[in-house]
Amino acid sequence: MTYEIHPWQLAWQGLDVAELVRTESTFALSNGHIGMRGTLEEGEPRGLPGTYLNGFYEEHQLPYGEAGYGYPEAGQTVVNVTDGKVIRLLVEDEPLDMRYGRALEHHRVLDFRTGTLRRRTRWESPTGRRVVVSTERLVSFTRRSVAAIRYEVEPDDGLQLVVQSDLLANEPIDQRSDDPRVAAALSSPLVGDFATAEGTRAVLAHHTRRSGLRMAAAMDHDLEVSDGHRTSIRAEADLARFTAAVDVPKGGRLRLTKYLGYGWSAQRSVPALRAQVEAALTGARQTGWDGLLAEQRRFLDDFWEVADVDVEGDDELQQAIRFALFHVLQAGARGETRAIPSKGLTGPGYDGHAFWDTETFVLPVLTYTVPDATRDALRWRHSTLDKARDRAEVLGQRGAAFPWRSINGAECSAYWPAGTAAFHVSGDVAHATSQYVAATGDTEFERECGTELLVETARLWASLGHHDRDGGFRVDGVTGPDEYTAVVDNNVYTNLIAQQNLRDAADAADRHADVARALGVTEEEASGWRAAAERMVIPFDADLGVHQQSENFTRHAEWDFDATPEENYPLLLHYPYFDLYRKQVVKQADLVLAMHLRGDAFTAEEKVRNFAYYEERTVRDSSLSAGTQAVLAAEVGHLDLAYDYLAEAAFTDLHDLHDNVRNGLHIASLAGSWTAIVAGLGGMRDHRGALSFAPRTPPALRRYAFRMCFRGTRLSVVVEPDQATYRVISGAALRAAHHGTDFTVEPGTPVVLPIPHLDPRTAPVQPKGRQPKRGWRPG
Amino acid sequence: MTYEIHPWQLAWQGLDVAELVRTESTFALSNGHIGMRGTLEEGEPRGLPGTYLNGFYEEHQLPYGEAGYGYPEAGQTVVNVTDGKVIRLLVEDEPLDMRYGRALEHHRVLDFRTGTLRRRTRWESPTGRRVVVSTERLVSFTRRSVAAIRYEVEPDDGLQLVVQSDLLANEPIDQRSDDPRVAAALSSPLVGDFATAEGTRAVLAHHTRRSGLRMAAAMDHDLEVSDGHRTSIRAEADLARFTAAVDVPKGGRLRLTKYLGYGWSAQRSVPALRAQVEAALTGARQTGWDGLLAEQRRFLDDFWEVADVDVEGDDELQQAIRFALFHVLQAGARGETRAIPSKGLTGPGYDGHAFWDTETFVLPVLTYTVPDATRDALRWRHSTLDKARDRAEVLGQRGAAFPWRSINGAECSAYWPAGTAAFHVSGDVAHATSQYVAATGDTEFERECGTELLVETARLWASLGHHDRDGGFRVDGVTGPDEYTAVVDNNVYTNLIAQQNLRDAADAADRHADVARALGVTEEEASGWRAAAERMVIPFDADLGVHQQSENFTRHAEWDFDATPEENYPLLLHYPYFDLYRKQVVKQADLVLAMHLRGDAFTAEEKVRNFAYYEERTVRDSSLSAGTQAVLAAEVGHLDLAYDYLAEAAFTDLHDLHDNVRNGLHIASLAGSWTAIVAGLGGMRDHRGALSFAPRTPPALRRYAFRMCFRGTRLSVVVEPDQATYRVISGAALRAAHHGTDFTVEPGTPVVLPIPHLDPRTAPVQPKGRQPKRGWRPG
Repeated sequence: MTYEIHPWQLAWQGLDVAELVRTESTFALSNGHIGMRGTLEEGEPRGLPGTYLNGFYEEHQLPYGEAGYGYPEAGQTVVNVTDGKVIRLLVEDEPLDMRYGRALEHHRVLDFRTGTLRRRTRWESPTGRRVVVSTERLVSFTRRSVAAIRYEVEPDDGLQLVVQSDLLANEPIDQRSDDPRVAAALSSPLVGDFATAEGTRAVLAHHTRRSGLRMAAAMDHDLEVSDGHRTSIRAEADLARFTAAVDVPKGGRLRLTKYLGYGWSAQRSVPALRAQVEAALTGARQTGWDGLLAEQRRFLDDFWEVADVDVEGDDELQQAIRFALFHVLQAGARGETRAIPSKGLTGPGYDGHAFWDTETFVLPVLTYTVPDATRDALRWRHSTLDKARDRAEVLGQRGAAFPWRSINGAECSAYWPAGTAAFHVSGDVAHATSQYVAATGDTEFERECGTELLVETARLWASLGHHDRDGGFRVDGVTGPDEYTAVVDNNVYTNLIAQQNLRDAADAADRHADVARALGVTEEEASGWRAAAERMVIPFDADLGVHQQSENFTRHAEWDFDATPEENYPLLLHYPYFDLYRKQVVKQADLVLAMHLRGDAFTAEEKVRNFAYYEERTVRDSSLSAGTQAVLAAEVGHLDLAYDYLAEAAFTDLHDLHDNVRNGLHIASLAGSWTAIVAGLGGMRDHRGALSFAPRTPPALRRYAFRMCFRGTRLSVVVEPDQATYRVISGAALRAAHHGTDFTVEPGTPVVLPIPHLDPRTAPVQPKGRQPKRGWRPG
Repeated sequence: MTYEIHPWQLAWQGLDVAELVRTESTFALSNGHIGMRGTLEEGEPRGLPGTYLNGFYEEHQLPYGEAGYGYPEAGQTVVNVTDGKVIRLLVEDEPLDMRYGRALEHHRVLDFRTGTLRRRTRWESPTGRRVVVSTERLVSFTRRSVAAIRYEVEPDDGLQLVVQSDLLANEPIDQRSDDPRVAAALSSPLVGDFATAEGTRAVLAHHTRRSGLRMAAAMDHDLEVSDGHRTSIRAEADLARFTAAVDVPKGGRLRLTKYLGYGWSAQRSVPALRAQVEAALTGARQTGWDGLLAEQRRFLDDFWEVADVDVEGDDELQQAIRFALFHVLQAGARGETRAIPSKGLTGPGYDGHAFWDTETFVLPVLTYTVPDATRDALRWRHSTLDKARDRAEVLGQRGAAFPWRSINGAECSAYWPAGTAAFHVSGDVAHATSQYVAATGDTEFERECGTELLVETARLWASLGHHDRDGGFRVDGVTGPDEYTAVVDNNVYTNLIAQQNLRDAADAADRHADVARALGVTEEEASGWRAAAERMVIPFDADLGVHQQSENFTRHAEWDFDATPEENYPLLLHYPYFDLYRKQVVKQADLVLAMHLRGDAFTAEEKVRNFAYYEERTVRDSSLSAGTQAVLAAEVGHLDLAYDYLAEAAFTDLHDLHDNVRNGLHIASLAGSWTAIVAGLGGMRDHRGALSFAPRTPPALRRYAFRMCFRGTRLSVVVEPDQATYRVISGAALRAAHHGTDFTVEPGTPVVLPIPHLDPRTAPVQPKGRQPKRGWRPG
C-alpha cells in the first residue's frame, strides 16, 4: 500500500497497522508551536503517539565512560505532552478499534490547502454494527495555542454511541531501539500540578521533573446531536475525560467539535498558564469551527501564492514537493523565538533537537517564502547568545559558539568530535542572518539582532583560527559538514563560511557603528576580521586539480566500495568512526555544499572537477545531501542527475528512504527539495544579496514554475525548455540576472528570456550502489 | 613529614593520618600476582585498603551518551579482594587505634633487600596502658600464592591482649572522586561461595557477579606466647576470624605468625581453588617464617646483583632509584601470563588496567634485569591474540589490534580517539618482543610466541596504512603517544615503530619459515611489509628543519603558555580536548620518544633541533614523559637537564608530583628513572640488538654505576667524569660500543675507556613554569 497521488493532498486508502507509525509522521499537523502526530482519534492501534510543544523538554544526565573537561552534563529530550487528540467511541458496548471487526472503508487525507487532516472510516463491529466516522483536525496557523477536531459519527441503524474525549498525560511509550538516532524514551515525564473539569471544559497542568518547565492543556466541546444525550466530565492528575452517551437514530448523526488549548512556560505560574489556555479556548469557540477553517485556508492561500512549485510531467513529484513545502511551513510558521527542530514537531527523532539543518537548509526556504519565520528563528538564536558565549568560553574561545544540538540553546552533544567540533554551525547562523537581511532589507532586525549575531560569530572564528608563519589564516581541528570526517584542519566549507562571516561582521559593524561600538568592536578588531578573511587557507590539490574537503583529504586512502555490500549502509552502523574518518568516503555534501553557498569562491571549471571528484566518494548516508547535490549537478550541467537528486530529496519521507520516518520527518531534506528546484533547476543564487537565475528544464519535465519573494516583491518564474518567464505577482520592480545577464522585471510586465544551449557532459560516477534511485522518474 | 633517607630502605617516622593514603601505595608489597597496600595491620585508620590479585576483575557496562559502532560494551575494574592483612589488637578492653591515645613511637620501613615491610609502634592507650607492636610483612617472590605477617606485641606491664586475625571480604570503600583517572569503585563485588574454619586455619571462597571469576583466600597461624591463652576461629561468608586472648606478663611477648594463601581462576572450581590455597599454606608453614625471609633475601640479592644502580653525590636520588627498581620488580616478578598493570598491584588507579606503559617503559627495564619477567609479560600478550584479532576485525583491519587499556586483553577504552586509535600499542608490543629476543637470544620464545606477535602486528600496519599516489606509505587517522593530540595523519613515533615492526616481522618470518608458513605468511605478504617500511612517510618541516610530530603539527597554533596559570595543570582538567588537540602543546614525549626508541632513524643534528623544538612545547602532564626527556636531553648534551628529568621520574611517587599516588604508583615512571640513568646518562642503546653506550657524568654526581644483563652476561658499568669501567659480573665476554667505538669486555678483565669532552650547548627552554623542579638537586 502506498500514498494516493494527488497534486494538493497526501492520501492513504485502507488500513495497514504496520504502516501507521510511518503515516503518523507524514500526516502530522503542526504550526511550529504545537505538533500532533497523525494518530487515529481512538488512540489505538497506534505506532507512536506524540503531541509536542516546541521548546518543551525534559533534562537527563549525559553518561560518559571516560569524562572530559567541558563535556555537556545535561541532555534534553522532547516530551510527549498531554495528548488532546484522543476521542474514543463505543458503538453500543463495542469499542471502535480497527484491529477488530472490519474496516469497509478507511481513507485519510492531509490537505495542503485547507491545512487539515481528514479521515473517513466505515467500520463494521465484530457483531455487525456499522458506523461511518468522519473527522477533521487542524492545528491553527493563525492561533498559535489552538488545535481543533471535528468528529462525526453516522450509524447505519439507530444505535447508542458513547464518545469519550480525553486529555491524557504520560501515555506509555515503548522504547524500541538502541540506535543513537532514535530518541531516548522518557517514561512518565510529567508531574501533575492541577486538574479541573466543569461542563464541557477541562484543564490539566503539569511540570517536568528535572527541567522544571510547566505546561497546561485544556479542552472544550460542542456536541451536536439529533436526539437525547447525557454528558459528564471529570479530571484527575493525568486524565481529563468528557463523556457523551447519545442515542442516535437511523439517519441521525453525532457531531462533536473539540477545541484544544496548549501553553507552556519556564517562568509563568500554573494559574497564569491555566488562564492562557482557557483564553485561547474561549477565543477559538467564539470563532467556531468554520471560522477556524476559514482562517487556516486564508493563511495557506497566502503561503501558496508566494511559495508554490508547479511541476508538469511528474505527478508524484508534484505531490511530494507540495508535501515538502507544507511540512516546512508547519515546522517554521509559528516557532516564534523557539528553535526549528530537525524533525519539526512530527516525531521524537534526534530527541527533538535543532541542528545546523535549520539555518543551512530550512531557513533559505523560509527566507524566500515566509521571511518572518526566518526572522523569528534567528531571534531564537539571538536569545540563546548568552549560552553560546558561555560555551565559547568553556571551549577556550571568544565570541559565541552555538550548539551542535539543543532544544534550549545549551550544547547537548555527548560526542564532541562529531558535535561541538562542528563549529561551522555558528557560521551557518551568520550565513542565514546575512541572507535574511540581504533578501528582506530588514534593517530593524539587523540592528537589534543581526549585527550582534555576526559580531559574536566572527569573534569565534578570530579565536578559532590563527595566522601561520606564511600569514595564511588556518582553522585547525574542527569538523565540517561531512560526518564521516572529523576534527580536521582547514575544512573548505568551514573556512569559506567563516570567511563570509568575518567579512559580513565587519560590514555590519561599518553600517551600524553605534551598535558595533556598544558591542565593543574596535577598528582594529574589524580590520583583523577582514585580514583573516583575506588570508583564509583553502586547501587545493594542485596535482589533481581539485579542492581538498579538508587538508590532506585527497592523500587519504580510498574507501573500498567494491567490498561494501548494500546492507552495510548507512556505513556508520557497520564500520567504526575511526576507519570512516581517515578515508576518502563522504557521508554528505561538504565541499559540494561549499560550492553552493559560497559558489562565488570557485571557478566554473573548479566546480566541474570538484563535483565529479566528490560525487565518486559521497554515499549520501545523510538525508541532508541529495538536495545540495542536485543544486551542483544542475550547475555543472548534469540535469538528469540533478533531477534524480531532487526526487531523492523530495521522496525521503514518502518513500522512507532512511527507514526512520517513524521518528519524524526530515524537514531539512524536504526543504532541500525546494532548493533543488529553485537553486538547482532554477539556478537561483543570492551571493551577498545579488539575485540571479540560470534556469534549465530537465528532460523529465515539460515545464515547471516556482515562486519566491525578494525584498518584498513576490516573483513567479515559469521555466520551459527554451525560455523562462519572470513575473511580478505583487510588489515593486525587481533586478536580477538570467544566465549571467542582468534584467529588470516590472509589475504587470512579464519578462521572457531565452535559455542558452547546454552542451552535454559525461555524467559523473557514484560509489557502487549509491546512484540516486531512478525509479521515481516519470514515464 | 616526609620519608627518611636511607640507601636501601624507605622509612617513615611518626603517624600522619592524612598521609596514610599515600604511604599505603609507596609501602605496598607485591610479587606481581598478589598485591597488598601498606595499610596498618589494625585496619584503621586507613586511606584506601587494597588487596589485589593480578587479573582478577569485575566487569561493568560502559555508558555512552551517543553510542557508535564497535565501541566496547564492557569495562573491567580491578577488585579489592579478601583482605588478609588485618590483625586487630585489644589492649585490655581498648582497641589499638592510632587516632586515639598516643603514638609514642611509630616507624615504618620498606626494606629493598629483605623485601619486607616492617613496623614498630609504641602506643599508649587513652587510659595510659603501653604496648610495643612490631610487625613484618612479606609477599613472597619465591612462592607466588603466599604472603605472611609476623606480629609481635610487648606490653610494658602485664596485660590481657586479644588478637583478632581476619580474612575480610567486601570491605566498604568510599568513592572519592569523579576524576576519570580514579578507578570506578565497585561496592561488594564478591559473592560468597564457601567458608570454613578449623583450628588455626580458615578459607573463604568467592566469585564476582558479572565477570564470574572465582577466588579463594586462606590463612593459618602460629601463636607463640609465654603464658596461658585461649583461641577460637570462625568463618562466615565475608569474614573468617582467628581470635587469641592472651594474658601477657610484664616482660612477656605475644607473637603471631600469619600465613596467607591466595588463588583465583576463571576455570577451576571452588574445591580446586580451596585445595590450591591450602596447599600453598601448608608449604609456607613447613618452610616457616624464617625460611620465607631467607628465600626472599636470596631472591633480592640476585636481583640487586644484576639491577642495582649506585649513585654517589645524591642520597635522596639513590634511595629513590632503588625504591623505583624494587617496585618495578614487584610489579613484574611473578605476573606470569598476566598483564603488568600501570599501577602494578599498588592501588586501584586506572581501574587496574595495563596500557602501552608495560611494553614501552617497564619491559625494557625487566629485559635487561629480569628477562624472564619480560618473557612472561609478552606471553600474556600472546595469550590475548584472539581478542586482539577480533578487535582488529571489528575495526575493519587485519592482524591484531591490542587494546589501549585492559585487564583480560579485551579493549576497555570508552573514548576511542584517545584509546583505540592509539594503535602504536600494537607496535609497542612488537618492539618489546624484538628487543627481548635480541637481548636474550631466546629463540624458543621467538618460535612459540614472538614470530606470531610480530606477524599479526605487521598485518595490522599493512591494513592500517596505504601507499599514496606517490608511493609513500601513510598511516592516517591514528593517535600517537602524546595525549594532547589525537587522530592525526602520520605520527612519526607510530610510523617509525610500525616501520620496525614490519621489518622485524619479515625478518622473523625469514628466520622461522615453518612458523611463518603456519601463520599463512606468503613471500608476497612479507615483501609488502618491507616495501611499506621502506616507503614509510615521516613528516618533516623543511622550513624549520624539524620533524613534525604528525603531519601539519608545526603549522598549528602555539599554545598560549603565558596565559596559562600554574593551577591549570594538568591541562586536560582545565581545557577541552578540542583545543588541546589542535595546538602545538604536547602532553608527553612523542617525537622525543621516537628519537629514543628509533634513534637510528634520526641524524645527530636532527635530534638536537627536534629536542629543542619539542622541549619548548612539552608540558609533562603525563608521568610517562620525564624519563624519556632525560634520555634525549643527555644524548644531545644537556646533562643538567637530563639529571633534572631523571630526578623528576624517580621522585614522581615519593614527592607525589601528580597528586594521585593514593591510587597507586606510576610503575612506568619508576621504570623511567632506570632508563634515564642507563639509557640517558649511560647512553645505552640496543638498536636491533647492537649494544652501545655513551656514558657521561652530570655535574651533580661524582660517580654512578649501573648493572644489566645482555645475552646471559651480567655487566657492571661504573661511570666517572673522565672514564667508564665495564666489567663482566658473570657470564661470557660481551661486545658493545663506547661513544661510537666498539670494544669487547672479557670476564675478569674490566675495560676502562675515556669519556670524550662535551662542548657546552645552550640549554633548551621549557614552557613557562614547566621546567623540571631543580629543588631535588643535592648541594
